[in-house]
Amino acid sequence: MDTRERLIESTRELLWERGYVGTSPKAIQQRSGAGQGSMYHHFHGKPDLALAAITRSADELRERARAAFDGPGTVAERIAAYLRRERDALKGCPVGRLTQDPDVMADPELRRPVEETFAWLTGTLAGLLAQGRAEGELHPALDPAATAAALVAVVQGGYVLARAAGSPQVYAQAVEGALALVLQQKENR
Amino acid sequence: MDTRERLIESTRELLWERGYVGTSPKAIQQRSGAGQGSMYHHFHGKPDLALAAITRSADELRERARAAFDGPGTVAERIAAYLRRERDALKGCPVGRLTQDPDVMADPELRRPVEETFAWLTGTLAGLLAQGRAEGELHPALDPAATAAALVAVVQGGYVLARAAGSPQVYAQAVEGALALVLQQKENR
Repeated sequence: MDTRERLIESTRELLWERGYVGTSPKAIQQRSGAGQGSMYHHFHGKPDLALAAITRSADELRERARAAFDGPGTVAERIAAYLRRERDALKGCPVGRLTQDPDVMADPELRRPVEETFAWLTGTLAGLLAQGRAEGELHPALDPAATAAALVAVVQGGYVLARAAGSPQVYAQAVEGALALVLQQKENR
Repeated sequence: MDTRERLIESTRELLWERGYVGTSPKAIQQRSGAGQGSMYHHFHGKPDLALAAITRSADELRERARAAFDGPGTVAERIAAYLRRERDALKGCPVGRLTQDPDVMADPELRRPVEETFAWLTGTLAGLLAQGRAEGELHPALDPAATAAALVAVVQGGYVLARAAGSPQVYAQAVEGALALVLQQKENR
């Protein structure tokens, strides 16, 4: 890995673990093994480096979700695959976490990839739910947009519950609870 | 308000807005108008003061939830009242927010009120859902514990979505989506 790459990856880790306010340029230099001069050669400063790190985390989240959404199986199976895919529940979401960073939310450039990621995620999931409804797989009264928002919220809130409990089990329980509600509707038709 | 009280309330606000790592003793002193000597007269230090602030936020969250759960109406109406009660979605949850603070999660004393609050919340909601199921108000196959975890997660994740979008509407949409899933089951019986 070259220095630029090491700087981005170290910033991604630190933002995930400690948030924006808890990530100092010094900590980034220490973790990446890059000197101060090298850091400012590659990036204008912390916001510039944070933008590269946040954009990459957002792109990765999208790619992983897309793999589940575009995977094999029925709509219900693909939604289940998305909700159940292996996650490090105690680490939480590297993108969702940024919404708790006042400095990230106050900077339109840093907030943009966060906003776009969740808009894309709920929009894509809503499209999939609409398809499942149209094909008779899901309940005809199901509201795709509201259900998609609820499911994305369950994932993000599941991380909160897992971290509060110090156990990933609550994450799994919340996700299975939500999935059962969506699928039980199908059985009830 | 006396000085001790002002210190606790200022710390509550700062923890909510900026998190633990972003809340310096100096910022607490500035917001509360208390001097350094006065702060250390009332509290041993930042962790001691944070514990008082976190405990109070946790107690308030519990009291508000209890008011909805013990309110009038059917089980479904009381759950709807809890999910729909007026919240400042863009500010997020003062207790859930702490799960993103690595220093709070790493300190067993500071984490305890956070853990206990969410355990109480999901447990109480599960009890209410079990009652609704026993009384024939909710679907007989509904899993009270998993559904309760899903609903509490939707609230916490709804805040994440609202902050990401910069709009409280997504919070309302996620909550209504989850509620429709729980209630539609009833209509399907």
